[in-house]
Amino acid sequence: METQGEAGQVGSIGDWTSCSADPGYRAAVLDLLGALAYGELSAFERLAEDAKFAPGLADKAALARMASAEFQHYQLLHDRLAEIGADPTESMTPFVEPLDSFHRVTAPSDWLEGLVKAYVGDSIATDFYREVAVRLDDDTRDLVLRVMSDTGHAQFAVDKVRQAIEENPRVGGRLALWGRRLMGEALSQAQRVVAERDALSNLLVGGAAVRGFDLVEVGKMFNRITEAHTKRMSALGLAS
Amino acid sequence: METQGEAGQVGSIGDWTSCSADPGYRAAVLDLLGALAYGELSAFERLAEDAKFAPGLADKAALARMASAEFQHYQLLHDRLAEIGADPTESMTPFVEPLDSFHRVTAPSDWLEGLVKAYVGDSIATDFYREVAVRLDDDTRDLVLRVMSDTGHAQFAVDKVRQAIEENPRVGGRLALWGRRLMGEALSQAQRVVAERDALSNLLVGGAAVRGFDLVEVGKMFNRITEAHTKRMSALGLAS
Repeated sequence: METQGEAGQVGSIGDWTSCSADPGYRAAVLDLLGALAYGELSAFERLAEDAKFAPGLADKAALARMASAEFQHYQLLHDRLAEIGADPTESMTPFVEPLDSFHRVTAPSDWLEGLVKAYVGDSIATDFYREVAVRLDDDTRDLVLRVMSDTGHAQFAVDKVRQAIEENPRVGGRLALWGRRLMGEALSQAQRVVAERDALSNLLVGGAAVRGFDLVEVGKMFNRITEAHTKRMSALGLAS
Repeated sequence: METQGEAGQVGSIGDWTSCSADPGYRAAVLDLLGALAYGELSAFERLAEDAKFAPGLADKAALARMASAEFQHYQLLHDRLAEIGADPTESMTPFVEPLDSFHRVTAPSDWLEGLVKAYVGDSIATDFYREVAVRLDDDTRDLVLRVMSDTGHAQFAVDKVRQAIEENPRVGGRLALWGRRLMGEALSQAQRVVAERDALSNLLVGGAAVRGFDLVEVGKMFNRITEAHTKRMSALGLAS
């Protein structure tokens, strides 16, 4: 396990069987898979609910398709938890309240807000998967990359939002504010999770080799994700 | 086309290419696929929404799984409509209002009502698919049977409802009433569709060979479906 060292270094740290012999590593991966699984399940629920705002059948179906893809991801993560001898419900439970809180305070009030949320959520998830993938054993990384490769349904959201801003530039101001609020709330809940789940936090900032909880490294990761978010919002015409 | 004759007779009436040369048959199949497609899309939406009543994560995931399966059905029907040169949105549109009305007046008020609705909806759909399959060309029948074979997720609902009634027999009375109401509202909307869509109605009661609109045959089909529903409700402990 010592071979991985610093954050960001690529290379295999071994497979699940060897890595999971370390109880700290095992606990961290159970946390990670539990958080991702509940994230996908609650994303399914919210996307399906936001489909009610759709202005037409094709739009409704597009959101339903995204929701359905999130459910498939949930299923993969759930099955993996069961496969490695964890109780999926137990692994998800610590993350129910933070994710439900996030969705509660970021309920879209119309179709465009729902689309921006779908896009932002999908993008943050992809960034996060990419950050964390390099710190995982081969088997867990394969799963995470598989779940990630199937995202990108959000191009639909991008096209619709861009079109709406072209038709009415004032919409851009409102959605820019909304995008910042989504990122702020996401960070706030993520900080809460990090503060409560030591094993997971250690994994996120450099694997089991890092001793103790490193708030600076966690902050750096959040900054990278926030920067990527800001760039995407600008590209979408939602500069702050 | 004359070889099929009476309602209920099994045997091939030919493939899509030969049958669809008859504009009445083509119109009827477009109606049928449009109705089924929107039925699946709206079932997705309702199941996903009802998942919010789930008492636990495993239950929530089970309802999300059913919703996701409905979306896959929708996709198959949608793709088939596009394949045969129809506009899927246009084909679905006549059925939006009847199906939305049904869902509006049968919004479950709790988890058990949602489960009974999922079970009843799934069962009626299966009965209907079976009724209509024998009247279809080979290609359309294959599609309908493929969509149908993938249902049956409702066993989950049956188990949960049975358990709830065992724990509190008074629940049975309330749910029996609910089951009757669901069937009543479904019939009411179906009658409305039948009255408005002549080509589809003719197909349902005996294919293109039947001349004119036969209310008696439609009534018989509805009776068969109602009887099957009543038997299922009794088996579930929801005798009226």
